Amino acid sequence: MGKYVFGVDIGGTTVKLGCFSAEGELLEKWEITTRTDDGGAYILGDIAESVKAKMTEAGITKEDVLGVGMGVPGPVREDGTVIKCVNLGWGIFNAAEELSRLLGGVSVKVGNDANMAALGEMWMGGGKGHQNIVMITLGTGVGGGIILNGKMLAGVNGAGGEIGHMTMDLNETDVCNCGKRGCLEQYASATGIVRLANKALNDSDRPSKLREVQYISAKEIFDAAKTGDELAMEQVDALGKKLGLACAQIACVADPEVFVIGGGVSRAGQILLDVTEKYFRQYAFHACRNTAFELAVLGNDAGIYGGARAVL
Amino acid sequence: MGKYVFGVDIGGTTVKLGCFSAEGELLEKWEITTRTDDGGAYILGDIAESVKAKMTEAGITKEDVLGVGMGVPGPVREDGTVIKCVNLGWGIFNAAEELSRLLGGVSVKVGNDANMAALGEMWMGGGKGHQNIVMITLGTGVGGGIILNGKMLAGVNGAGGEIGHMTMDLNETDVCNCGKRGCLEQYASATGIVRLANKALNDSDRPSKLREVQYISAKEIFDAAKTGDELAMEQVDALGKKLGLACAQIACVADPEVFVIGGGVSRAGQILLDVTEKYFRQYAFHACRNTAFELAVLGNDAGIYGGARAVL
Repeated sequence: MGKYVFGVDIGGTTVKLGCFSAEGELLEKWEITTRTDDGGAYILGDIAESVKAKMTEAGITKEDVLGVGMGVPGPVREDGTVIKCVNLGWGIFNAAEELSRLLGGVSVKVGNDANMAALGEMWMGGGKGHQNIVMITLGTGVGGGIILNGKMLAGVNGAGGEIGHMTMDLNETDVCNCGKRGCLEQYASATGIVRLANKALNDSDRPSKLREVQYISAKEIFDAAKTGDELAMEQVDALGKKLGLACAQIACVADPEVFVIGGGVSRAGQILLDVTEKYFRQYAFHACRNTAFELAVLGNDAGIYGGARAVL
Repeated sequence: MGKYVFGVDIGGTTVKLGCFSAEGELLEKWEITTRTDDGGAYILGDIAESVKAKMTEAGITKEDVLGVGMGVPGPVREDGTVIKCVNLGWGIFNAAEELSRLLGGVSVKVGNDANMAALGEMWMGGGKGHQNIVMITLGTGVGGGIILNGKMLAGVNGAGGEIGHMTMDLNETDVCNCGKRGCLEQYASATGIVRLANKALNDSDRPSKLREVQYISAKEIFDAAKTGDELAMEQVDALGKKLGLACAQIACVADPEVFVIGGGVSRAGQILLDVTEKYFRQYAFHACRNTAFELAVLGNDAGIYGGARAVL
């Protein structure tokens, strides 16, 4: 009988779970619904039940489980204390201790979901072979995860790698979800790109293929840019400028080997890397100007891979 | 007979040296000239001779020396490889191995001078009691040193904590020493503050006490601001805005417990902390909005303290 590890990734609507061998092979993955009722009181219980059910089904005993690694969508201290996960309704408590108790004492590691995804990409994805990576997840929001010498940078307030909330424009008038103005997330998230494209379309009568689309998504903006649509190309360039500048600033702090770009927006592919690198090379300090850029490869599985890696 | 540690801090004009007890007490400090002739070929030899002379003088044998910790003014990899110290004329070589050889095999640790100063301040200065600090040195240039979990963040290219070269203004027309435009150093260094004050004085006829000074220094700008001189106050405010914004961005990456502000400019005192914190609180992500700010206390000795700490 071998040993097993579980990776868990809590999202706002579903919890992703994976069962891995001790060698890091993903044996099975599944999802459960994230119940956010009553301040998210049922989430950890649901996860514990689901893990236990899988153990029973596969004939895995508690002694066979090396541990559970879990990513949560919010700031987490190194000891597993979560500090308000707004999407889940959670306040401040030690999620690692709580899930461990619910699993009868199994070892549990908890980290921020973006940090866990970074760990996963370093282990089995776009950052493979590196020990120092910055992962940037461009989805509905912008998440960041930093791995230095193979270890997550959690930060004293669990805000290590919260690069979506770097202030990039002091003149922004729209408000970010976090309450500030001018956050990277307002320009480089899927939502942000669409926001700016709609502004550009409304502010002029310039021709663009995007005018034929009723509800524009980030994908359509990139697709139009790839076919040479000028307005769309400008939007992509503006995104690259903000993201490249942010990466240059991050490099002056953390100086990683590679930036790994993931999240839904990264499905745009090479065009996104090209435009980001162009501005990065312009704004980066000379010593780190040649830092590599890679696309993430694990997609939605990065979080469960990272959870498993955090245990192993 | 006790054990000893030497701290060395190489500057562009002088090398500072300190002999410490194994308990961290600074027993004696002295300086030698930095000979930058012939591409800095004599610097390490001079340091080795000076350390050996002190050992002979004090009756310290090689076996009594726990090690030598040395800060150099440029990027350094974790293994002690320096990557071009422009001020010293150095190229790329392993300074730790070289100095160790010159000292007959004594253990040598080498780090970037700003990182070493940060380590010193964490140990015995403004960051005492903390394990996660960002130190910012506002001198002729702007240096940065980052300590996470008690360890220096050297960076893959030795550019960890090179926050003086974060690009803070995309519209800057003047060029930084590094070749880029808009670096933090161009606004927050002593040189930068004076540059901007002179600009402001030349661009208008507004009254200011600074007009009575022939050669303005950073000190005079702060002194005038403290007495209510409006133009000087604006200059200090502008500095705080750039520095506070940079700290907010750094906090989104490294999320430290405390920012320690040192260097000649920091002698301005509380006014500098106040104006920096004001903008930091405005631009920082909510989770790290209460990060502390402290003034450095070790002054020019921070580097040799850090060197000693790196060994102990």
